[in-house]
Amino acid sequence: MLNAEIIAVGSEMLTPYRVDTNSLWLTEQLNALGIEVRMKVVVGDDEARLDETIRIALKRSNIIISTGGLGPTEDDITRKVFARVLARRLQLHQPTLDRLRARFAKRNMKMPEINARQALVPERAQILENTNGTAPGLMMREQRALVFLLPGPPREMKPMFESSIVPILRQEAGQSFIRRRKLSIFGLSESGVDEIAAPIYSRYKNPETTILADRGVIELHLAARARSVGEGDLLLTEVSDQLEEALGHYVFSSNGESLETVVGQWLKFRSATLAVAESCTGGMLAARLTDIAGSSDYFVEGVVAYSNEAKIRILGVDEDLIVAHGAVSSEVAEAMADGIRRLAGSTFGVAVTGIAGPGGGTEEKPVGLVYIGLSEEAGTTSRKYLFPGDRYLIRNFSVNAALDMVRRRIR
Amino acid sequence: MLNAEIIAVGSEMLTPYRVDTNSLWLTEQLNALGIEVRMKVVVGDDEARLDETIRIALKRSNIIISTGGLGPTEDDITRKVFARVLARRLQLHQPTLDRLRARFAKRNMKMPEINARQALVPERAQILENTNGTAPGLMMREQRALVFLLPGPPREMKPMFESSIVPILRQEAGQSFIRRRKLSIFGLSESGVDEIAAPIYSRYKNPETTILADRGVIELHLAARARSVGEGDLLLTEVSDQLEEALGHYVFSSNGESLETVVGQWLKFRSATLAVAESCTGGMLAARLTDIAGSSDYFVEGVVAYSNEAKIRILGVDEDLIVAHGAVSSEVAEAMADGIRRLAGSTFGVAVTGIAGPGGGTEEKPVGLVYIGLSEEAGTTSRKYLFPGDRYLIRNFSVNAALDMVRRRIR
Repeated sequence: MLNAEIIAVGSEMLTPYRVDTNSLWLTEQLNALGIEVRMKVVVGDDEARLDETIRIALKRSNIIISTGGLGPTEDDITRKVFARVLARRLQLHQPTLDRLRARFAKRNMKMPEINARQALVPERAQILENTNGTAPGLMMREQRALVFLLPGPPREMKPMFESSIVPILRQEAGQSFIRRRKLSIFGLSESGVDEIAAPIYSRYKNPETTILADRGVIELHLAARARSVGEGDLLLTEVSDQLEEALGHYVFSSNGESLETVVGQWLKFRSATLAVAESCTGGMLAARLTDIAGSSDYFVEGVVAYSNEAKIRILGVDEDLIVAHGAVSSEVAEAMADGIRRLAGSTFGVAVTGIAGPGGGTEEKPVGLVYIGLSEEAGTTSRKYLFPGDRYLIRNFSVNAALDMVRRRIR
Repeated sequence: MLNAEIIAVGSEMLTPYRVDTNSLWLTEQLNALGIEVRMKVVVGDDEARLDETIRIALKRSNIIISTGGLGPTEDDITRKVFARVLARRLQLHQPTLDRLRARFAKRNMKMPEINARQALVPERAQILENTNGTAPGLMMREQRALVFLLPGPPREMKPMFESSIVPILRQEAGQSFIRRRKLSIFGLSESGVDEIAAPIYSRYKNPETTILADRGVIELHLAARARSVGEGDLLLTEVSDQLEEALGHYVFSSNGESLETVVGQWLKFRSATLAVAESCTGGMLAARLTDIAGSSDYFVEGVVAYSNEAKIRILGVDEDLIVAHGAVSSEVAEAMADGIRRLAGSTFGVAVTGIAGPGGGTEEKPVGLVYIGLSEEAGTTSRKYLFPGDRYLIRNFSVNAALDMVRRRIR
């Protein structure tokens, strides 16, 4: 089995503020190809240490992937140091320089001269096209190792890895696969899911199952080792079928789709439309729904009615209702949901009202209290939640709960 | 100046699901003591690689901190491998064993025999008490380096570091501090910022300056090493004053505040209010603004008008305008901004309309074309942008550009 080492380059990765998330994504991709990640190193813009790190990696790893340090500035040292260690001269690559100039010209900008550095390429290196940025990636084949230099920004690194590197590594890795599946669950706690799931997954050593929680969404990750894709998928299916049956309607996806994707698919399938009225989530619910390309097919409109006055004026909520029950109440959540559905002329109206904190909580209505209303022609319902955590978590929990409420209603 | 290297031990850190957050916290603590983190390594439960990693670290680093791998099971290898590399025998430490047994007894449990491993201590090591768990930490003084072995769980590692290690390191480091400052810039490209900034910062070795880009926001990170907080801040100010002057109004913050925070502060200061109308950003602008606790003081409301029909009906955009110029045009952006300002009765109305892709682009109006309108009583303006990248980036660039447009108008 091939093993890989990931080297993140950049002094910003050695501050308290930045964490190397690229390596997590790369690990997932490499595992899918049956390649194990055996080391990860973070090194600053420090030529001596990067030099040493590369020399050691070349001795012990089959596949070496660096991220970052390919920018146009003085402190971007990756190209230079790898070229030195691998004893390859850096040469100006004219087609890359032309592409860089054209990229700037397209935006009516003159290329700053320092960007020409990004067209320097070590001898015998293969260029990996960067469709989302200026720095091209580089691949070099050494006697014992394959070396890849990738840009740091995930938006540039990921498509480059998928389109240029996966095909190469698939050939290198041969017949060894790690197949993964993810069950996404909403509406149960992490320990609630584990109580149901552990009696099933703990009977299997292959696939291995891990449980993770992210803003109210619980994920069961299954990983199977196999000699073929088919064998791996069979191993996964045996366990995931049992888990899906035991967890029932709490499972919203078994292929990594997000709640907003699943909701969008159901809306399309039913030729239904949706409009949203938000108070405490302040636009996050609309933003999540419109994250999906093509969401204009079913997402009609959204209103962020932060003030009571906006709830009354735009959504037509009865002022007496707010006076009698407060803006954070099932009555107001339902009136907001009705209001946005009528305003938009949509099939469904969903509304969120709550107290995200840190201020604004009382003994009777504490921080974390959230009501979600769902309106359709046949009638209107609402649900009360009390979410733990801070403003960030409460807002995210609320969005997930609202999406899940639509999903359960429509499926 | 002392430099540190952090080694995270454990195969779970080499999966796609776990990120080494301990090292971020440790970096913050070490920086506060004037100790720079120069390397971070993640190694699995792999004796050969951990052995090699320790040997290299001993050659180049003054302070070596490992986290994890001190548990009671077979795959917890940290104690054993460090002892071997440092040529110290492992000895049973009776007081630690007694403490472990007492800890279990207190909870009416018999200590599993494997836990006795946690009482094995390398010769001449100092024991660091673990108030929240079973594994004690260990400190060993070598000729050229101080070595600390800490448990992996943050709730055990952090109090141990604070109570046992900080006093030791404070003595070792003497009067040495790292002070940091961040200038946040919008409206210039990364290389555009560097062309202006490099002639200034490259004249200084202390502070060191690093440049980073994140969704259109460019950050200059300055780090100064000094013998006192005051001296460090003086070094920072000398450089950052020059940078701020050269970069002028492009700098929106010099203390790490986000664009939405700065905009909120200005709105509060001017007793002004804001309402937003969004098309392609689909609620993200409102969500960013309402991320800030207390934003209800100045954020009145938002409308996500995805369809032309919603732009006409809610925002009062003239249908003829959309027919004549298209929904993505400066005319419609301005009409949306006027519309939301009137609807909300706010000081400012800001509107975003554009083509986020991947579909919907034409030769005349390509993906990435975005208009931002800004309305106030004195008049309405708009700006045209052509953003690079994919749907995610275009939406994020648009939100930042809209926030920056408000900032420039109001300051």
